[in-house]
Order: sequence, then structure tokens, then C-alpha cells
Amino acid sequence: MTIDIARARAETPGTQHVMHFNNAGAGLMPTAVINAVNDHIDLEATRGGYEANAIAKSLQDRAYSAVAELINASPDEIAMVENATAAWLMAFHAMIRDFQPGDKILTVEAEYAANYVSYLQAARDKGIEIVVIPSDEAGAADLGALENLIDDKVKLISVTHVPTNGGLVNPAVEIGAIAKRAGVLYLLDACQSVGQLPVDVTEIGCDALSVTGRKYLRGPRGTGFLYMRKDLLLQLEPAYIDHSAAVWTDINSYELVKSAKRFENWEFYVAGFIGLGVAVDYALEWGIVPISERINSLADKLRDDLSAISGVTVTDIGHQKCGITTFVKVGVDPQDIKARLSEQNINVSVSRHDSTLIDMTRRGLTQIVRASVHYYNDEAEIERFCEAVEAL
Amino acid sequence: MTIDIARARAETPGTQHVMHFNNAGAGLMPTAVINAVNDHIDLEATRGGYEANAIAKSLQDRAYSAVAELINASPDEIAMVENATAAWLMAFHAMIRDFQPGDKILTVEAEYAANYVSYLQAARDKGIEIVVIPSDEAGAADLGALENLIDDKVKLISVTHVPTNGGLVNPAVEIGAIAKRAGVLYLLDACQSVGQLPVDVTEIGCDALSVTGRKYLRGPRGTGFLYMRKDLLLQLEPAYIDHSAAVWTDINSYELVKSAKRFENWEFYVAGFIGLGVAVDYALEWGIVPISERINSLADKLRDDLSAISGVTVTDIGHQKCGITTFVKVGVDPQDIKARLSEQNINVSVSRHDSTLIDMTRRGLTQIVRASVHYYNDEAEIERFCEAVEAL
Repeated sequence: MTIDIARARAETPGTQHVMHFNNAGAGLMPTAVINAVNDHIDLEATRGGYEANAIAKSLQDRAYSAVAELINASPDEIAMVENATAAWLMAFHAMIRDFQPGDKILTVEAEYAANYVSYLQAARDKGIEIVVIPSDEAGAADLGALENLIDDKVKLISVTHVPTNGGLVNPAVEIGAIAKRAGVLYLLDACQSVGQLPVDVTEIGCDALSVTGRKYLRGPRGTGFLYMRKDLLLQLEPAYIDHSAAVWTDINSYELVKSAKRFENWEFYVAGFIGLGVAVDYALEWGIVPISERINSLADKLRDDLSAISGVTVTDIGHQKCGITTFVKVGVDPQDIKARLSEQNINVSVSRHDSTLIDMTRRGLTQIVRASVHYYNDEAEIERFCEAVEAL
Repeated sequence: MTIDIARARAETPGTQHVMHFNNAGAGLMPTAVINAVNDHIDLEATRGGYEANAIAKSLQDRAYSAVAELINASPDEIAMVENATAAWLMAFHAMIRDFQPGDKILTVEAEYAANYVSYLQAARDKGIEIVVIPSDEAGAADLGALENLIDDKVKLISVTHVPTNGGLVNPAVEIGAIAKRAGVLYLLDACQSVGQLPVDVTEIGCDALSVTGRKYLRGPRGTGFLYMRKDLLLQLEPAYIDHSAAVWTDINSYELVKSAKRFENWEFYVAGFIGLGVAVDYALEWGIVPISERINSLADKLRDDLSAISGVTVTDIGHQKCGITTFVKVGVDPQDIKARLSEQNINVSVSRHDSTLIDMTRRGLTQIVRASVHYYNDEAEIERFCEAVEAL
């Protein structure tokens, strides 16, 4: 099956207003998602917030099962939270709860700042050691080096699947096999991979996985989810709990609920989660494999066309690449490129040094322009985009 | 100034569909809030999520300053988070970070389950002692008893301002004076008070205050905020951080931002926070004092009229009461009352035993019906409501 691009664009109102190459920031929502969110807000306004909740229960149930279907998990392994970082923090702090001084966390060079500051906090508070897996010649996590780093002190491998700053897809499945052999916890930050490439938690063998709604899933801002393997989650206590996570059973005790809902809050953005469910169903309808193939084809063309422009250097890394392309142009500041493209209704973002400090330092980069494509972008846009970059 | 009820109802579409006596669950959003949320969702859909963010920056800035104005704080003392519990957890875990075994937390009998399970977790993990301030004869925190409980081991007074289950407004200002004299941290859960009565953090003297958007402020679900006093917040490290709270400055260090944003996440529900700002401005336009007077007048009438019904017992407590009224009716299960009123498009909720376990146990209550009014409700609704309750 190939994707009907005309239909995909017709169902994406934003394509009539902007050339959106900032899908790794936030994807353009399709009409079905926009309507689902606005309809539920209107239902809340006319019936009451909790009353609307009860009316729309089946849509919320579907959000859990759609997400579970997407990543090959069970609905009770899914916690709906407000963003990928919240999901990641819930999993990370539960996982490290009993870690001892000297225990090690392995991570990657292109690890995201949001995660790394938490490693630093844990290192200071608990005496945990952070060990960065060297990158191979392509910039991906070096699997041989990872094997060599495994010892009795390693308790967690925590990596970003698709880093923020350029092409790279880390070898999640291979890392999972190493984690499994070593009997080590494995936390995967899949914030930028889910929705643009097939992610199967059973195949990957991760213990937990954090995802946002707003990027490649094209869901609403302010939504995300955590997957955690059932038998693990039943053993872990979240660092933050409320009465929906933990039932107050008598004056001196509480009981954690027996599903991933122990990582949730009582109150949340219901309209957004309904929208997220619709976004996932919309992605499943196109098919993740066709989506992934289309994105790769567009991104390959974008990299090729950008590389052909005088003064432009594509700064992507990795053996396997994805829809995120980054580049610099001699003599033009990346922030300036973003601003000048914006005047032409072209959306890109800028990846900063401190977002992936270790990788950017190693590569001698300060800022790079990030152009991230989705399946609803088209070849004509890429050509216009490259003309615009050339003209800067 | 008195409130123009006809206008208030005309600007609240839900009043044409339901008799909404579940404002302590979620208030009906006014038209201005509904439009603000839907407009921003549409802007995200047409311009892109982050691009819409930039366009709507002034609306977001106003949300901070509106909230600050509402509670008499400074905008840099406000963190926007997804709900009141998230706000409370951020403050609580930062406050108890350095607590030692034997340190005491004082709380109230009507404390909410969401908070109490966290006390129990802290008691187990850190050896902290939880001490419950006895209630006075009206059911409010007994100020004399509180004075007597203060000793060197008391490090935090943490109380719910307006509990979930019936009338009570705890004496926040008086508790603040005691906390100040004792030099003890003071955390106020104002989830149900802000928006229905004047709350001034300077007058109260609380160090931190947690609030939701969806209840008496009539904002969107999935929004809330934390206030923390500036000189305190600069000394406290959140237990959960990301790269917007803490800048990754070099490979081994990070620096917390110097405002309440250290308690925020990078990603959030932007449309909702814009809606929250509009909701606060809308409340400020009516005036919190007129809102409060109107709510009290309606709630007094509701209590009187309910009390006059054969078989009905109003279960409210407290010297000072608010817009939340609770009751039971002989021979009719509270859940059944809720369901049968719902068939008549009348919205109420049910407070369960385990939501305020200590208070409900002391009073021998299992479940009670909660009818919570707002200023846009009217006397005719109260009369129809009581007729409906009588007919059950």
C-alpha cells in the first residue's frame, strides 16, 4: 500500500498555510484529531467536565487500546501522561528508587538534555555513576563498546531512540538484546521515533518506553504516554503518587493500583487524550510501514538536495536514518535561517548545543537547522525548500 | 457591584443544557474560555504547534500575570503545570527533600487522599511522622490544638484549604500566622478555594499553594498552577527536573532556572494555559469578592432548602462555609441520587469515604452527595434541585 498524498494533505488543514518541516517539534494535526479535541471541549462546556468524561468513556478506552496496538503492548501497560518527559521521569525515578552508590546507568552520546540532567541529579543524590556509550563511526551507539561496558554495577541502559539533532536512529533492538542478556533494565526514550517508524516493544525488549503525542503521531500538544512491562510495573513504586495511583485503604496504608495507571494523575487533559487516540488510529489506518517508507524517501531526497547546495552541509549521523534532517549553511546563522524561512511560511527549528551537549561538543557544532518531514509533505515542497535555502 | 446573572448565564453555554451543581468537580467554562482553547488548537493546526506558541506568546505571558494578580503574587513565582496534584507534588517533594527521620508534617482531618498517600509514602521512605491536627467542634482545624502540636520536629504544615466533602473552609490565614511564628514551612492545597473565595498568598503567608484550572476558576481540564514564594523556591530543588527547569551547562552540571519555572515541564498544553489565563481574567472582571458573596448566598439557600426536606441531612462542617454542600437522604444511596438526578440533566457528584478517610471515618460517613454551586447558578435552579431531591 502506498499513501494517498492528495488525501493526506486534504485532511491536514495546515498544509494549505505552511510548509511544515518541523514535525519533530510538533506535527500538523489531521482534521480528525482537531475535531475530536474541539468536540470534546464543546461537550465539556455543554455537559460539564466530568459528565463529558463519562459520556466519552469509550473514546478514552480506545485511546489506551490504540496506543497499545501501535507499540504491541497491552492496554494495562499504558499510562497516559501529559508529555514524554513526564512519562520518562515517572519510569526513571521508579527504576532508580533502590539503586545504590556505585550503580551505573549507561546512556548514549546523543542523549537528550531533559534526560541527562536527571542522570546528573541522580548521580549527585544517590552516588550513581553515569557512563556514556561511545558512538561508532556513524554516530550511533557502538554495540561492541556497549557489550564491553556491561558489568555487575550496570543496572540500567537508558537511551534516546531518535535523538533531537540529526538523522540518527539508535539500534534499539540490538541494545535490547544486550540488556536482556545482561539482565539490566532498559528504558527507551521514543519521543521522536513512535509515529515515524515501526516501534514494537516486544521486538525491542525494552522495559519501559516514553512517547509524546504531538510529534510524529500528530496528536495534540500536552499529551504523552508511558509503556511499562506489566510484571515490572507491578514491582515498581512511582516516586510521585496520588489517590488514583494509590488507593488510601486505611489511615496508615495505601495500595498501588495493579496497572500502569499507577503512573498517572487523577486529573488530566481528557480532550487531548481522546485526540491522541484518534491520532493513533489515523496513523494505524495509513499503516506505520507505509508512513515510515514515505518519510524515509522524502528525507533521503531532502538530504540529497540540500547536499547539492553550495555552502550547505548536512549534519546527520547514523547508519539508519529517519525523517529528521539537520544542516548548516556557511555564513548564515541557524536562527537567522529559521527566521527568514518563517517569513516565507516555511517552518523549521534550530537544535541547540545544550540540547545534546555531548554529541554536539564531540562534533564541534553549536547550532544546526532542523528540517523534519512527515508523510504528508511532498517532493514539490522539498524542491521549494531547497530553493529557499539556496537563496538565503 | 453585583453580578449580572443573566449575562453570566448567557456567557455560559452549559447553563442551557444542564443544571450544573458539580462546580467542585469542574466548573462550566464560559464562552471566552471555550473560544480561547478552540482558537489556539486551530492556530496550532494551521500554523504548527511551536509556531502557534510563538504567535500566542503574549496570551501565555498574560496567563502568568493574571494568575499572579489573582493570588497577589509575582509572575515568576508561578509554575504552570497540568493539574493541582502535579503542582502539589512538585512543591511537597521539593520541601521534604532534606527532611530527616523523626521530622513531622502536620495536616488536617479533612485532608485529601491525593495528599495523604504522599505523606504515607514519605513516612515510610524517610521516617517522617504524620501528625493530624484535631478538628474543633465545627470540624475545622483546631487552632489551639495546632499551637500545642508545634515543636522542634515540626517542619511542615500542609493542609487542604477547602476539603472535598462538605462546606468547610479551613482557617488558612490563622494557620499561616502560626506557621510563621514557628518558622515552619506551610503548603496550602487551594485546589477548591481559588476562584470561589479571595485567596491572597501574602495575607495567608503560605510558602506554596497548589491550584487547578478546572474547578472554581472555570478553566480547561488539564491545567493547574503552583505558587511558591520566590526566596524559598530559589533554595529548593524539584525532585523531577528537565532541561527547561535545569539548563545543562556542561557535561557534569546543570543550573536550575531562577524562577518557579524550575517546577515546570518543557512541553505542555498551551491552548489550555491560554484558556486558563482567559478564565482568570474573566473571574477578575466579575471580581472575586462579588463572586464569593454570590456563591455564599446561593449555598446558604441550598443548605436551608435541603435541610427542610424530610429525610435529608446536610453534612457540611466548618465555621466559614463555601459553595460546596453535601447531604444524604434516608433510604436512597448517594450513587443512586447522582444517577437519578443525571437523568434530569442535574449534575452532582458523590464524595467517597476514601477521599477524606480520616474525616469521614470520624463522622461515620461512607458516601455523601456533593452539590457545589457557582455564581452563574440561580435561585430557581436551587428550588428545582430541592424539588428533585424531595421527589427521589
